[in-house]
Amino acid sequence: MSPVSQPPASRPRARDLGVRIGLMPTGATNSIVDVADVSVGHRTIWRDEPGPPSGRGTARTGVTAIVPFRSAELFARRVPAGAAVLNGAGEAIGITTIQEWGVIESPIMLTSSMAIGRVYDAVIAGLVERIPRVGIDDALLPVVAECDDGVLNASRVVQVDAGDVDAAIDGAVGSVRGAPDLGVVGAGTGMVCFELKGGIGTASRVVRPLGRDGSAPGRAADEYRVGILALTNFGWLERLTIDGVRVGQALVDDGWPVAGGGTAEADVHVTPRERGSCVVVVATDAPLLPHQLERLARRAGLGLARTGSTAGHGSGEIFLAFSTGYRIERDPPAATTVTTHVTDSYLDRFFMAAVEATEEAVIDALFVADTVTGRDGFVVPGLPVDRTLGLLRAAGRLA
Amino acid sequence: MSPVSQPPASRPRARDLGVRIGLMPTGATNSIVDVADVSVGHRTIWRDEPGPPSGRGTARTGVTAIVPFRSAELFARRVPAGAAVLNGAGEAIGITTIQEWGVIESPIMLTSSMAIGRVYDAVIAGLVERIPRVGIDDALLPVVAECDDGVLNASRVVQVDAGDVDAAIDGAVGSVRGAPDLGVVGAGTGMVCFELKGGIGTASRVVRPLGRDGSAPGRAADEYRVGILALTNFGWLERLTIDGVRVGQALVDDGWPVAGGGTAEADVHVTPRERGSCVVVVATDAPLLPHQLERLARRAGLGLARTGSTAGHGSGEIFLAFSTGYRIERDPPAATTVTTHVTDSYLDRFFMAAVEATEEAVIDALFVADTVTGRDGFVVPGLPVDRTLGLLRAAGRLA
Amino acid sequence: MSPVSQPPASRPRARDLGVRIGLMPTGATNSIVDVADVSVGHRTIWRDEPGPPSGRGTARTGVTAIVPFRSAELFARRVPAGAAVLNGAGEAIGITTIQEWGVIESPIMLTSSMAIGRVYDAVIAGLVERIPRVGIDDALLPVVAECDDGVLNASRVVQVDAGDVDAAIDGAVGSVRGAPDLGVVGAGTGMVCFELKGGIGTASRVVRPLGRDGSAPGRAADEYRVGILALTNFGWLERLTIDGVRVGQALVDDGWPVAGGGTAEADVHVTPRERGSCVVVVATDAPLLPHQLERLARRAGLGLARTGSTAGHGSGEIFLAFSTGYRIERDPPAATTVTTHVTDSYLDRFFMAAVEATEEAVIDALFVADTVTGRDGFVVPGLPVDRTLGLLRAAGRLA
Amino acid sequence: MSPVSQPPASRPRARDLGVRIGLMPTGATNSIVDVADVSVGHRTIWRDEPGPPSGRGTARTGVTAIVPFRSAELFARRVPAGAAVLNGAGEAIGITTIQEWGVIESPIMLTSSMAIGRVYDAVIAGLVERIPRVGIDDALLPVVAECDDGVLNASRVVQVDAGDVDAAIDGAVGSVRGAPDLGVVGAGTGMVCFELKGGIGTASRVVRPLGRDGSAPGRAADEYRVGILALTNFGWLERLTIDGVRVGQALVDDGWPVAGGGTAEADVHVTPRERGSCVVVVATDAPLLPHQLERLARRAGLGLARTGSTAGHGSGEIFLAFSTGYRIERDPPAATTVTTHVTDSYLDRFFMAAVEATEEAVIDALFVADTVTGRDGFVVPGLPVDRTLGLLRAAGRLA
Repeated sequence: MSPVSQPPASRPRARDLGVRIGLMPTGATNSIVDVADVSVGHRTIWRDEPGPPSGRGTARTGVTAIVPFRSAELFARRVPAGAAVLNGAGEAIGITTIQEWGVIESPIMLTSSMAIGRVYDAVIAGLVERIPRVGIDDALLPVVAECDDGVLNASRVVQVDAGDVDAAIDGAVGSVRGAPDLGVVGAGTGMVCFELKGGIGTASRVVRPLGRDGSAPGRAADEYRVGILALTNFGWLERLTIDGVRVGQALVDDGWPVAGGGTAEADVHVTPRERGSCVVVVATDAPLLPHQLERLARRAGLGLARTGSTAGHGSGEIFLAFSTGYRIERDPPAATTVTTHVTDSYLDRFFMAAVEATEEAVIDALFVADTVTGRDGFVVPGLPVDRTLGLLRAAGRLA
Repeated sequence: MSPVSQPPASRPRARDLGVRIGLMPTGATNSIVDVADVSVGHRTIWRDEPGPPSGRGTARTGVTAIVPFRSAELFARRVPAGAAVLNGAGEAIGITTIQEWGVIESPIMLTSSMAIGRVYDAVIAGLVERIPRVGIDDALLPVVAECDDGVLNASRVVQVDAGDVDAAIDGAVGSVRGAPDLGVVGAGTGMVCFELKGGIGTASRVVRPLGRDGSAPGRAADEYRVGILALTNFGWLERLTIDGVRVGQALVDDGWPVAGGGTAEADVHVTPRERGSCVVVVATDAPLLPHQLERLARRAGLGLARTGSTAGHGSGEIFLAFSTGYRIERDPPAATTVTTHVTDSYLDRFFMAAVEATEEAVIDALFVADTVTGRDGFVVPGLPVDRTLGLLRAAGRLA
Repeated sequence: MSPVSQPPASRPRARDLGVRIGLMPTGATNSIVDVADVSVGHRTIWRDEPGPPSGRGTARTGVTAIVPFRSAELFARRVPAGAAVLNGAGEAIGITTIQEWGVIESPIMLTSSMAIGRVYDAVIAGLVERIPRVGIDDALLPVVAECDDGVLNASRVVQVDAGDVDAAIDGAVGSVRGAPDLGVVGAGTGMVCFELKGGIGTASRVVRPLGRDGSAPGRAADEYRVGILALTNFGWLERLTIDGVRVGQALVDDGWPVAGGGTAEADVHVTPRERGSCVVVVATDAPLLPHQLERLARRAGLGLARTGSTAGHGSGEIFLAFSTGYRIERDPPAATTVTTHVTDSYLDRFFMAAVEATEEAVIDALFVADTVTGRDGFVVPGLPVDRTLGLLRAAGRLA
Repeated sequence: MSPVSQPPASRPRARDLGVRIGLMPTGATNSIVDVADVSVGHRTIWRDEPGPPSGRGTARTGVTAIVPFRSAELFARRVPAGAAVLNGAGEAIGITTIQEWGVIESPIMLTSSMAIGRVYDAVIAGLVERIPRVGIDDALLPVVAECDDGVLNASRVVQVDAGDVDAAIDGAVGSVRGAPDLGVVGAGTGMVCFELKGGIGTASRVVRPLGRDGSAPGRAADEYRVGILALTNFGWLERLTIDGVRVGQALVDDGWPVAGGGTAEADVHVTPRERGSCVVVVATDAPLLPHQLERLARRAGLGLARTGSTAGHGSGEIFLAFSTGYRIERDPPAATTVTTHVTDSYLDRFFMAAVEATEEAVIDALFVADTVTGRDGFVVPGLPVDRTLGLLRAAGRLA
């Protein structure tokens, strides 16, 4: 492998190629940053060094930060949140507090499984500096979720450093620059999805709440956004379903995986079929209560199912949802609080949006992520886009 | 057994004898009906007939209804609710909806384990008559919880009839008549607690919310009530702890259980040591969100622990909490709702109240419930009150 | 409506028309009774009487019993079980005990929402007669789950009687007669799915466990079955997806629902878009531990997602799984038990089977269930099969 | 404060002073290491440096490792585990996997809240070195739980270093040296419990399983141990209950807290009343299945309740249980596994043991932990032992 290798550039997004998943309209950038006050930052870590002790080996990993509002003020003014687990062979540090208190008070960090400790440590170090009350009034418990990129990434060496974490958080930007970088980037750098190159995918939907009689309220103000960011690292190729089309089975029939390989030793059983996971972050600017956000998070699993997930035994499908529609103060001034929130019986369109956008975010990650060669010469091919588009077209599924 | 046997009259309540459990002030009646808009009704079923086919056998059972507001309007204007399970060897029909939606839309009914179907059926019949929209707009799913009174009650025959259910609901009264009837009454008629006669117990606490710095807000209006009604049917005698005093162990040392007995066949292994359960209903007039109510319900288990519960394998410790502090409309007029609720960081005193009042409610049930002879001549003795008071006095625990 | 109306006969099953959902082989009857020692019985209740007080109105409902082994011996020799809830706007009486103890000790009954009390009561009455120890040693807590058939069925009158329950249980048969009756039958009689006629659907898969390296163990004995029975009563037409093809959207584009109607009063808002639910029963003859069965049950939701479910706010997606691979004795002879169970890392194919077979069971229900006219003249049309097959063929999805 | 300050030596344990909590016999050392194959190691971090930038400030913290078998072989041969949360305002990294898979595959680490990332990172580094397959076959997800010691410890600086983590793990010893060090040691160094000095407490019970008729099986081999290690950092003084005696209320009546203080600035609201948490680790050598261990873990909360816990809003009561009675292989050789486990209906004595031993472990921590002066001169006094013994004696509660 050449020492000057670089992460592949992002390929076109699925929707730009005519793929139309779901029935609801997307937001302006069809990404999580369509949700007001949400920004995303990545730090990609890509190195081709010899292994220890002379170097750190082949790094194909990174860090992604999803930041509601601004990282340094979240501790004092938290966002409502909820979490759900479909299959829990993974971890999101902070999930217990999210489930109990229904708040998130730090950026949501995504990274490689064995790097979550270091990322947690770096978030602490960075925020202690900026927030004088951390550790005086209360401890800060950052949220750090993981998928295992050990197929491509030399994960025995924790490749992430504190500076990478700061860079991801500080580099987070909202919708002014369009959708965030996608695919082989940040925490997605080394991820494998349906035995193809996966990584970061995103999508969004515009939601007008709908009552249970099917009628929507009339006011224009009642329009919200649901945005998804997915770290995709799961699935068996033969089950890959793109907008209902059995693309995976067709690829297997074609003889895929055509690539694979690497050194002889690496090749043999280097990879269990379902080693991966999928962390889905659901954001909305609708004012949802924590328990409503938990219910919203739960719907992410339905989106995964539509792409072919069967939530493998070894997979960590962990879903975190938050709202930027209101804040929950750390030191509230009064014993009672007045909250405006979406009426329960108007939740259905939000659920639909979460399902649709999760499905699209996973598929999007596959479209944009190109082939990556990683540790020990192991190659994970990108989705063959032309073949895929041909299959979709044959099934009448291209716009 | 005499055919003219009757349920024993209630004995004095624990607090009236000087027992002082916990640190917080009680409400006016020290019962669940101290909570605004809560009423309680019982129907005691006590029969001494021959068994089938000529009669229904020995009935020592009943129905208890806890009614927020009025039963016929709950369907349209529901109360927020939450549920928690400490050990789930039991059932509360409706718990799944409470956990998902966080509402209760019917009276909460308590009865014998194998009677919950009939009680459900009777609640349906009664409310369909009074609520024209039931079954047109939506099904009604009543809440019916159970403990097993099969030690004293001939439970193989379902002893409850529809008329009993109507009587319990229609007879429900609030605080105007003081605390509800207690002990060997309603669903409590046949229950056994710490191998002594148990049944219905209750207690309440007045709560002034407290911030996390220990300071309370200044306004007099910020005063709420937490009320407990417990259906007590659990526990091993040697673990019975009354206000910290090991009364159960002392009774065992005294040679208890002195009674027991019945026919030879019934006596042998008629009763597993932990056959029972404990359903705790937690009510408050504080405006708590569903998730806050779920957290409040969870604290009931801590109160049980203080009486000596170890949550036996065969026990159903199921806790249901609701608030009368606001209503959740079935057909809300708008896509958003404004709710005033207690601020999370002011919840601690509510939790304390639930723990204290649950502990007291269980102990109260033991004090008031006198000896009952049931099916097959089986006798469950009431707590020996004088001996107990002596033990408490010796430990410095009587007021 | 004619007083001689009858339930429509079952139409051909999806697979018999060339629909091939999923990748795994089906069992002999492609139904839940392919699982050893499982039988299914239905009692369909179909009446066209005037409403109360002169009659019981229009009955379009029933009872379905899924019976592991034989109903009268389950109390003593229970089957391992697990449960999962995707959206809990519904109830399965007994779910709390299933979650705590991991056993089922009665037939699993399905019926109309407001009839679950009466069905519970009838199961108690029937089994008390056959099992002398019920109520002596322990209470029996039957399992009764529901969906709301109030759109077609006059559900304000509980239409089920005790005799119907006995008939469903006593009529249960295993695979000797092939797949059980499907569609507009038993509890499925009045159900509505994707705004089309739904009801009972089923499917099965043959499973050879697979290790995480993708290799299967070599012994022929290692072959198991996973069977699904679904009571389908959920969904929005425009989201109906059949084997990946957007049939629902095409039907909406065609102008569907073409039918509907009924009297003027009934027509207006008689039906919220998502009033329904979906109860899925998962059976396997593989020896799975209770927690493994809970995980298996959870996968049913992924199958629903593939058909277009977004788990609506008003829907009760409740999943119950059990194994006939071993028994759990009520009165075990020793303090330790030896159990043979499927190794965790070999679970993936079971999960896949549950996802696939759930998807197919829902679709199967739509294919077999013909149009039904119910209360107040309300009509729910059956899936237009020819149009559907045309759409599948166009997408290359017919075998 | 003197720069040569040292952690106070452990004071006598409660039982050695005649305190007798619960009814069951203790193991040989009355500690978690009575459980076969369990060892415990601590690293206490105690520094009195100036704050940053010239030093790291006042360290009153540390790391505790609970090690089943040996740390380097747990990855391949895991122990069955379960987890429960009473109030989730805290975190145990790894809890999601424990709940899903029911295994623990690393030492269980306890430390200060904001140090869990660094401890995780150090466990990874240490074990990668010793286990060649970590990161090749699978990621390793260590278990790291926390309480917040920020009242005494300058927690804004993460005081733990990788070497401390190695030292705690490498120094772990079993019962050969008696009970582990207790009180102001390891992760317990800076903890505060009932506004008194808390820290590490432990206790154990010997369990002979008991059937539900109260009879035990006859074989001597059926004897197991349940051991508790608690990191105690919760509670309001006035609720402190020691073996049923209201010691806390008596101390408040005495004018406690007599100490407190520190610099003027620190003194004012430096500490919310309930900032703390309680992590309880439950170990047993009985072969319990994961779901049984989850149920066992849940009982720890009942033990806390008996000491006066009301599970405050801000508290993280997180309970982790594991068994050394059998192993769960990472790469099992066959699709089925044969497991011997305790029969469900024989669990009650295990539950009782967990309740009793948790209660005693908390009280033990208070007895052994002497006064500590920490950051900004803040003083947390040790339980006044003589006064406490006097109160217990007066209540007849001293052996």
